[in-house]
Amino acid sequence: MLPDVEALMAANQAFYDAFEAADLDAMSEVWQHGDDVLCTHPGWATLQGWAKIVASWYAIFQNPQRLQFILTDPSPSVRGDVGWVSVTENLLDGPATSTVAAINLFVRDDRGWSMVAHHGSPVLRA
Amino acid sequence: MLPDVEALMAANQAFYDAFEAADLDAMSEVWQHGDDVLCTHPGWATLQGWAKIVASWYAIFQNPQRLQFILTDPSPSVRGDVGWVSVTENLLDGPATSTVAAINLFVRDDRGWSMVAHHGSPVLRA
Repeated sequence: MLPDVEALMAANQAFYDAFEAADLDAMSEVWQHGDDVLCTHPGWATLQGWAKIVASWYAIFQNPQRLQFILTDPSPSVRGDVGWVSVTENLLDGPATSTVAAINLFVRDDRGWSMVAHHGSPVLRA
Repeated sequence: MLPDVEALMAANQAFYDAFEAADLDAMSEVWQHGDDVLCTHPGWATLQGWAKIVASWYAIFQNPQRLQFILTDPSPSVRGDVGWVSVTENLLDGPATSTVAAINLFVRDDRGWSMVAHHGSPVLRA
């Protein structure tokens, strides 16, 4: 794997690690904190801007049930200082399972890759 | 609006024009035709590669009912030769209405902006 793709995949993994750990500080580290960052949780309308997005993570992390992600079909792309990863999230939510199709978009600056968009959607048919 | 953002928004509009017209040639013009392009229709698993994606548009366009899109909350971003547009698709499907949250990702080359990812997801809660 090329070094920039490797770093992109590490940033993508850091997102899921923060999600699984319900760690708001770690999630905050993953994201850019601008007014134009975008987050679409499965079934939700799109949230724009870090203030709304961090509030959504705070609310999601209140749920005492921890999610577990098994990631499949990872497909990373890098073009200049923009990278994106398509991935299938196979979710274990206690005894329940579900599948989410996700695309994660990152921008690179001096401190590495930062998330600027996450879009997850429920897979309702095979 | 900056010229490159204007061109990005025009490419985004061309996608919806092709969709509304159910015009496979126009849809083909909008997209890059590589093996790593990505398309997630609402409720579907992610399709990767132009062959699968064009087959999905062919299947969708067989539906004689034409969709009508009213686009709201457009949010374009450009970083180098990559651009993305977040938009809310308010869909009229005959008498039915539905809402889809979408992100559309484009890459710029000599011939302008080409779509490399479309991810639409059903908005199931406000």
